[in-house]
Amino acid sequence: MLYFEDIQLHEVMQSSATYPVTADDIKRFAGEWDPMPFHLDEAVAAMTPIGQLFSSGAHNIAISIKLSHTMMERPVAAIAGLGWQDVRFPLPVCAGDVLRLRTEIIDKRVSQSKPDRGIVTTLITLLNQDDAIVTEYKILTLVLRRLDSVSQA
Amino acid sequence: MLYFEDIQLHEVMQSSATYPVTADDIKRFAGEWDPMPFHLDEAVAAMTPIGQLFSSGAHNIAISIKLSHTMMERPVAAIAGLGWQDVRFPLPVCAGDVLRLRTEIIDKRVSQSKPDRGIVTTLITLLNQDDAIVTEYKILTLVLRRLDSVSQA
Repeated sequence: MLYFEDIQLHEVMQSSATYPVTADDIKRFAGEWDPMPFHLDEAVAAMTPIGQLFSSGAHNIAISIKLSHTMMERPVAAIAGLGWQDVRFPLPVCAGDVLRLRTEIIDKRVSQSKPDRGIVTTLITLLNQDDAIVTEYKILTLVLRRLDSVSQA
Repeated sequence: MLYFEDIQLHEVMQSSATYPVTADDIKRFAGEWDPMPFHLDEAVAAMTPIGQLFSSGAHNIAISIKLSHTMMERPVAAIAGLGWQDVRFPLPVCAGDVLRLRTEIIDKRVSQSKPDRGIVTTLITLLNQDDAIVTEYKILTLVLRRLDSVSQA
């Protein structure tokens, strides 16, 4: 189990797994959750500035979480998710793209109100086959400290 | 078509549609996208502080977008989504919950660099049957101005 103290600031990890995106996958996700015509119909998508079928942002987030599960070697002593910040979609995800995930620990700090836990900020970056960022966001997680760290504090 | 000028600051809308959450739905979404044991198995979930099966945050986002589609009476002249801010999950979504959506226009401003468009910020709130907030986030959208507004500027 990884506790707050075990999490290394600035550590970067990359998924060895990739996620190949298909037109059927884009349409199936969007059909259930985000039925915008340009996520469902190539002809409509061709008339948008993007010019081809592209995925729902919610689909990109789901793909990033799925890929993150391929990178969990040891479970983290997480108490709760505190939410996401600065979610952006700088480039569209299109059929034929092959996505992979990079994570970086960009901040960690002990809770001021509850010294038995800390807040870890992870930058989640979804990249395509050209190493271009298609989705990026920060996850804030409440993580338990080791008991011996707390008693020394 | 709703242009930037047609969007009313502070306007609040509520979905008349609701989304009833089932255990099967929670497990199906999590099984594909976020296979944490506590999203998949009632017995594991019972041992968490939440004490029962609860949904993936990505699932909540997907539900909110699905409900937003029931509220689109007129299309918005949106050019692009600029991302999401301050995504938070204050309460878990559990089997049996019945969710609905509230949206509020909390900010709108003309783009400084491109005066033919503006940025609209919408607060998206997913509520349960007790009127409690289960998920909340802000969406920033780039929206075209009416041509006559731009030429007068």
